[in-house]
Amino acid sequence: MYDAIIVGGGPAGLTAAIYLLRACKKVLVIEKEAFGGQILKSSNVMNYPGFSSIKGLELGNLFYEQAKGMGMESLYGEVTSITKEKDFFLVNVSSQEYKSKTLIYAAGLHPRKLSFASFDRFIGSGVSFCATCDGAFFKDKTVCVVGGGNTAVDDALYLSNICEKVYLIHRREEFRAEPIHIQKLKEKKNVIVLQNTVVTDILGEQKIEKVVLQKEDEKEEIFVDGVFVAIGSIPNTSILKDFVPLNSNGYILTNLFLQTSVPGFFAVGDVREKKVRQLTTAVSDGTIAAIEVQNYLDET
Amino acid sequence: MYDAIIVGGGPAGLTAAIYLLRACKKVLVIEKEAFGGQILKSSNVMNYPGFSSIKGLELGNLFYEQAKGMGMESLYGEVTSITKEKDFFLVNVSSQEYKSKTLIYAAGLHPRKLSFASFDRFIGSGVSFCATCDGAFFKDKTVCVVGGGNTAVDDALYLSNICEKVYLIHRREEFRAEPIHIQKLKEKKNVIVLQNTVVTDILGEQKIEKVVLQKEDEKEEIFVDGVFVAIGSIPNTSILKDFVPLNSNGYILTNLFLQTSVPGFFAVGDVREKKVRQLTTAVSDGTIAAIEVQNYLDET
Repeated sequence: MYDAIIVGGGPAGLTAAIYLLRACKKVLVIEKEAFGGQILKSSNVMNYPGFSSIKGLELGNLFYEQAKGMGMESLYGEVTSITKEKDFFLVNVSSQEYKSKTLIYAAGLHPRKLSFASFDRFIGSGVSFCATCDGAFFKDKTVCVVGGGNTAVDDALYLSNICEKVYLIHRREEFRAEPIHIQKLKEKKNVIVLQNTVVTDILGEQKIEKVVLQKEDEKEEIFVDGVFVAIGSIPNTSILKDFVPLNSNGYILTNLFLQTSVPGFFAVGDVREKKVRQLTTAVSDGTIAAIEVQNYLDET
Repeated sequence: MYDAIIVGGGPAGLTAAIYLLRACKKVLVIEKEAFGGQILKSSNVMNYPGFSSIKGLELGNLFYEQAKGMGMESLYGEVTSITKEKDFFLVNVSSQEYKSKTLIYAAGLHPRKLSFASFDRFIGSGVSFCATCDGAFFKDKTVCVVGGGNTAVDDALYLSNICEKVYLIHRREEFRAEPIHIQKLKEKKNVIVLQNTVVTDILGEQKIEKVVLQKEDEKEEIFVDGVFVAIGSIPNTSILKDFVPLNSNGYILTNLFLQTSVPGFFAVGDVREKKVRQLTTAVSDGTIAAIEVQNYLDET
């Protein structure tokens, strides 16, 4: 019986592990892909205090080694179900069952991608899913933002203060973003809004050189250095339906202490409903949940 | 006119600076003692993800150099007043006035100390103000916790899972902590509670060897390796009275987005009312406030 099973070995999950191990708790962390999480795909992280510039892969490995060095038990595998018995959780991984007094769910999300063949090749080398994370790499350059919701419009606004020119490309006529955000954007002289337009390809050798646009029957190529994709994300919560309350987009609802309505079940990092999803907020979540798990263990 | 003035150059303030500088904002950070904040006094930080073990001084310097490298303007000096004019703040430092559209208050707190001569000498080398931060350094050792509130009792409970023996020393008969916490503590076999007892001295050469206790007219010495002091902290908010709402202990009240009730005035890190005060939660605060400051600047 573990004190805590942590589902997901990204920054939030590994931080929770570090704090629990320091408190001498028995912890298992289950990861289905690679310990370190989404930052592994970042070519360069410059917004995590303490590291002026570090490869995401390297930073993710540092997190993992730190937890491992403190005695973390870890397991590669996909969690297929979580159930709660009287006072413990049963976690199923490849038909094996693991028992724990508490559960910290840190399985993250995956961003929606554009659906053409060349797209994946540019992820981390010109294609980004996070303007706040990667915008500074495109100072005085030209970028496009793809999407029509609040995130896309806010990203374009954010990038307009950094980049020389920003295209906002939306496949529909109408934006889902709030009118005040759109109004602000229209006041920016270096932003060009293209409606009813779809990105159909990215061209370039080592780096992005152009994107191909389609508007009705017309094709056009524009020069850009970066492509910011803001067409939504999908939290990895499909196994939690009917188990913990999710919001309409599938994110886990928690209180300030990162507790869900299921006693002993906590959610941390990108997978929970919150406004800011950054490395710094992920490690904060992991810390808070680890402390609350200890309170829960002390009180039950 | 600055986009943001940040009062306090600890981890929360410097993280806010890093995020704002990445967004090409004009930022001034004012620090009265040393950039890096409270961690500068930690001999060893092991709970900040990315660094298995690092001197606090070194980590604080990394934070500072990172912000400096991005173009942060900084100023040494004590802020003596903050006022708000129509749509900007006036910050007074040594009779000089600085103007800014927004203000991020990150001035931290200072813990209450025990009042005998040898005390300061052991801070960072045996005396700690944070069980969650430093408890793991005392695995299988003997420590004492000084205090009678919830923090003291929770610290003793936390340390009882790590240390061989824990003394809880309280100068009064009655504890202010909640009864359920005290009950839990009394069930721990390795915790000894000493009431009506005062620590009057710490003895040791390189490291702590004993503490001297006084109970009524009797003196006693006990062997301990570490002393955890949990007799409260004082947030550095005296200049903010009548300017932003504080709680009864002087901590700044914020909403989820770290806004105070004064538009454009944000509070981050240990100085605001919250439950968990760790390095990880400080950098999270800095991030969230920096993003909200940008929204505020965009909307006004």
